[in-house]
Amino acid sequence: MSVKKGRQTYVNDRGVYIRETAAIVGPREKAGPLGDCFDEVRPEDWGEKTWEKAEAKFICAAFHKLMGKTDRKTEDIDCVLAGDLMNQCTASSIGLKDSNAPYLGLFGACSTIAEGMCIASFLINSGGMDNVVCMASSNFCSAEKTYRTPVEQGGQRPPTSQWTVTAAGGLWLSSEPGGPEITSVTVGRIVDFNITDSNNMGAAMAPAAADTIMTHMSDLNRTPDYYDAVITGDLGITGSGILREITGLSESVHMDCGAMIFDPVKQRTNSGGSGCGCGTAVLSCCFYPKLIRGEMKKILFVATGALMSPVSVMQSESISGIAHAVAIEI
Amino acid sequence: MSVKKGRQTYVNDRGVYIRETAAIVGPREKAGPLGDCFDEVRPEDWGEKTWEKAEAKFICAAFHKLMGKTDRKTEDIDCVLAGDLMNQCTASSIGLKDSNAPYLGLFGACSTIAEGMCIASFLINSGGMDNVVCMASSNFCSAEKTYRTPVEQGGQRPPTSQWTVTAAGGLWLSSEPGGPEITSVTVGRIVDFNITDSNNMGAAMAPAAADTIMTHMSDLNRTPDYYDAVITGDLGITGSGILREITGLSESVHMDCGAMIFDPVKQRTNSGGSGCGCGTAVLSCCFYPKLIRGEMKKILFVATGALMSPVSVMQSESISGIAHAVAIEI
Repeated sequence: MSVKKGRQTYVNDRGVYIRETAAIVGPREKAGPLGDCFDEVRPEDWGEKTWEKAEAKFICAAFHKLMGKTDRKTEDIDCVLAGDLMNQCTASSIGLKDSNAPYLGLFGACSTIAEGMCIASFLINSGGMDNVVCMASSNFCSAEKTYRTPVEQGGQRPPTSQWTVTAAGGLWLSSEPGGPEITSVTVGRIVDFNITDSNNMGAAMAPAAADTIMTHMSDLNRTPDYYDAVITGDLGITGSGILREITGLSESVHMDCGAMIFDPVKQRTNSGGSGCGCGTAVLSCCFYPKLIRGEMKKILFVATGALMSPVSVMQSESISGIAHAVAIEI
Repeated sequence: MSVKKGRQTYVNDRGVYIRETAAIVGPREKAGPLGDCFDEVRPEDWGEKTWEKAEAKFICAAFHKLMGKTDRKTEDIDCVLAGDLMNQCTASSIGLKDSNAPYLGLFGACSTIAEGMCIASFLINSGGMDNVVCMASSNFCSAEKTYRTPVEQGGQRPPTSQWTVTAAGGLWLSSEPGGPEITSVTVGRIVDFNITDSNNMGAAMAPAAADTIMTHMSDLNRTPDYYDAVITGDLGITGSGILREITGLSESVHMDCGAMIFDPVKQRTNSGGSGCGCGTAVLSCCFYPKLIRGEMKKILFVATGALMSPVSVMQSESISGIAHAVAIEI
């Protein structure tokens, strides 16, 4: 059973455990401060003719990597929830088409992994499903081509811009006890503060992160210090600053996967990393092991997404943000 | 509680009722055989400068139309599930951004409404949510521009091609008894029979529909004649023929929203209608009233999606299909 608290938060009465995780990243992510955490590193094009084919290969390989770490077969998986940044989410559907598992496609931009974990909590708490895999991916070159300008053009990047992380990863969630537990989830709302600069995703997403975090705390009557860390997905350095200013979250509690994954000076990544794969890989390979090792006991993972397309930006639509929160405790 | 049956089917132990529906369509849909069913008709551009803005306006208006038919306020809605065919599903996120409701974005191509109804069944059966709105939309011109060639180019359409339906609609699902009940759902798998012709979506989706329908029957130990009708979303005339050939479904049981919504001869719509809005509008405004009036008692609604993008087609990727099934009884 999921038990509703306040407006948007649901406490998992039936345990939802993160049993295993996996992530495959590109060379830039490997060269960053968290490089040693990730399961595998592969070239961004992974020997494929196109970036899109490479991204599908990443997500396919990440799924098999994840399954290979478990004692389960694909037949044991009740459902795979997945999404990415490509038009019509083709990286996921092509990458996972041979999995033969029931499939629910998601679009939550960079919030996808948290959206998947929220939905998976309900799937498991309904009593119907026992084993769900949540996946997400992004690829620097395919995202640049889709959203901005071709990489070969060498366009200048403003200080607020973020580098899309090349990574695909996933988590196996199960009703069977073992590992960190998802204790509650907060389903986010679309929040729009009229940001129109597609090179400043952090500003577009920070108000949504703030809304979801404050709602989560108020719904459960908690303060941020209940958690060892409140971890946002990919606000980057700019967006993290805005979030802390809005919410009063201190730097000792707030961490951001996008701000952590690259060294902004050495790697010249401006405001940090972004993309569905960013929060997914950092949660899977950095925070999950910390929870397993007991270095952290309670975290709130808040993946954030910017709901836009190049067409919507060209048509002067503002960029909305959304954030979903997942409380993980051990 | 959701109770798992077989590999992919879940029986709703807690009632999930379709309490109200709404759909707004374009003039071509109004002129078709089902024209009198729909709630409202609006020009395809609805006075907007771009097709994308018009599509967002359709989904926004359909949401308010639906809410206006109920005795509920938006605050009573625990969650909105929505998706469309636009890149990054911007019609839904822009159209619904002012709703202020918790939002989960989906990408299931034309299977979106059934995917939403499946997930909503779990959300409600978890005990956590009580009122969920599922929405989907498509627009002929924005879809042609996104997937094929600009309408102004006047490209020839092969006989297997389908016309994207201009429609946005939705259903209010509630745990509170009243109206037709969603008794079970079958979550579909990605099925790929190596179709590469983006002008033959029916052929790409029919095997997925067959897989889901046969799985549903086998999981519940039923035969198709348990239902008054097995209704596919938008296989069109070509895809419907293929489905009947694969499954042996008879024309007396099988109906297809895409084949029903236009008059193929008078309206020159070739293989029929398609798009997320097609199944959504026909289920909402044609089959829901039939259930309410007692003209039908048991239907299986199977929306089908073609998981592709113009880029995936140009890169010679095959077009996968997916279908999710929702059993509705009164």
